Amino acid sequence: MKYSTEKALEILEQTPKTLKSYLGNLSNDWLFANEGGDTWNPYDVVGHLIHGEKTDWIPRLKIILSNSENKTFESFDRFAQFENSKGKTITQLLNEFENLRQDNLKVLKQLNLSSEQLQQKGMHPELGEVSISELLACWVTHDLGHIAQISRVMAKQYKNEVGPWVAYIPILNT
Amino acid sequence: MKYSTEKALEILEQTPKTLKSYLGNLSNDWLFANEGGDTWNPYDVVGHLIHGEKTDWIPRLKIILSNSENKTFESFDRFAQFENSKGKTITQLLNEFENLRQDNLKVLKQLNLSSEQLQQKGMHPELGEVSISELLACWVTHDLGHIAQISRVMAKQYKNEVGPWVAYIPILNT
Repeated sequence: MKYSTEKALEILEQTPKTLKSYLGNLSNDWLFANEGGDTWNPYDVVGHLIHGEKTDWIPRLKIILSNSENKTFESFDRFAQFENSKGKTITQLLNEFENLRQDNLKVLKQLNLSSEQLQQKGMHPELGEVSISELLACWVTHDLGHIAQISRVMAKQYKNEVGPWVAYIPILNT
Repeated sequence: MKYSTEKALEILEQTPKTLKSYLGNLSNDWLFANEGGDTWNPYDVVGHLIHGEKTDWIPRLKIILSNSENKTFESFDRFAQFENSKGKTITQLLNEFENLRQDNLKVLKQLNLSSEQLQQKGMHPELGEVSISELLACWVTHDLGHIAQISRVMAKQYKNEVGPWVAYIPILNT
């Protein structure tokens, strides 16, 4: 499947309401359980997605489209959510994510990027040259990857509860 | 986390609306793309979940609770959805799943299973003895596993579109 902003928007637009349905009514037993050690729980993941809306996707897109000589992105802080989410309920985080995402998608739609613009490039501090279409495709897969992560983390809480079925549920063995 | 019907219900109740949010407004490009060969697309997965509601979880629970001497489950047909989903839109499938799930959870709640009942056992045709609590915990992880699968299948459609970011999105490399 080739990148198209129209198809990318289908995924990017559903994520906030999917996460609200998925996590909005869960108790802390599900929301704050992780995979052990420093791994993230579903609450952490939502905070991470919020930080992406604030500092990653659209801010990086604007760097590429700018007239600046230096189009190197700032490094993304993968731990910002631990400070930023403090004291907030999951409902607050889900609403914050939804609002930020709506604003960002409004910007994306208004830009109405041409196929030439989608090929414009910025500089990732570690990965080197990347194009706008790669950035936007990455945004899509990043959403999907974190929905999968949330699913895996929650499923694993019942790994010891399913008995012999553990052999039949691949996600419990990843 | 120990199995409890109260916590299991939190997951089982959200799945139909999460899938509606996730898939209800997507185009066929996302819904009918798979991971190659005979692998399933998101549309197939919803059909599979429907078949589970009809033949797996509550029917097997009823076998265990019955007075029958023989508590061996029927084998689950992992391919039934290819016939049963034919000609249906994703919206029809999502509504069908929601209705079946609501009916099944009504049964589960009305049973109000005691901790003794949760330990009653049936016979899985391949796995041997399994308890009601294992069956119900499996139902939960099965939902979560298929939400993860849907996420992975859709993310992989953009594997070639993310450029060098492929190294940073674990789900693209599974």
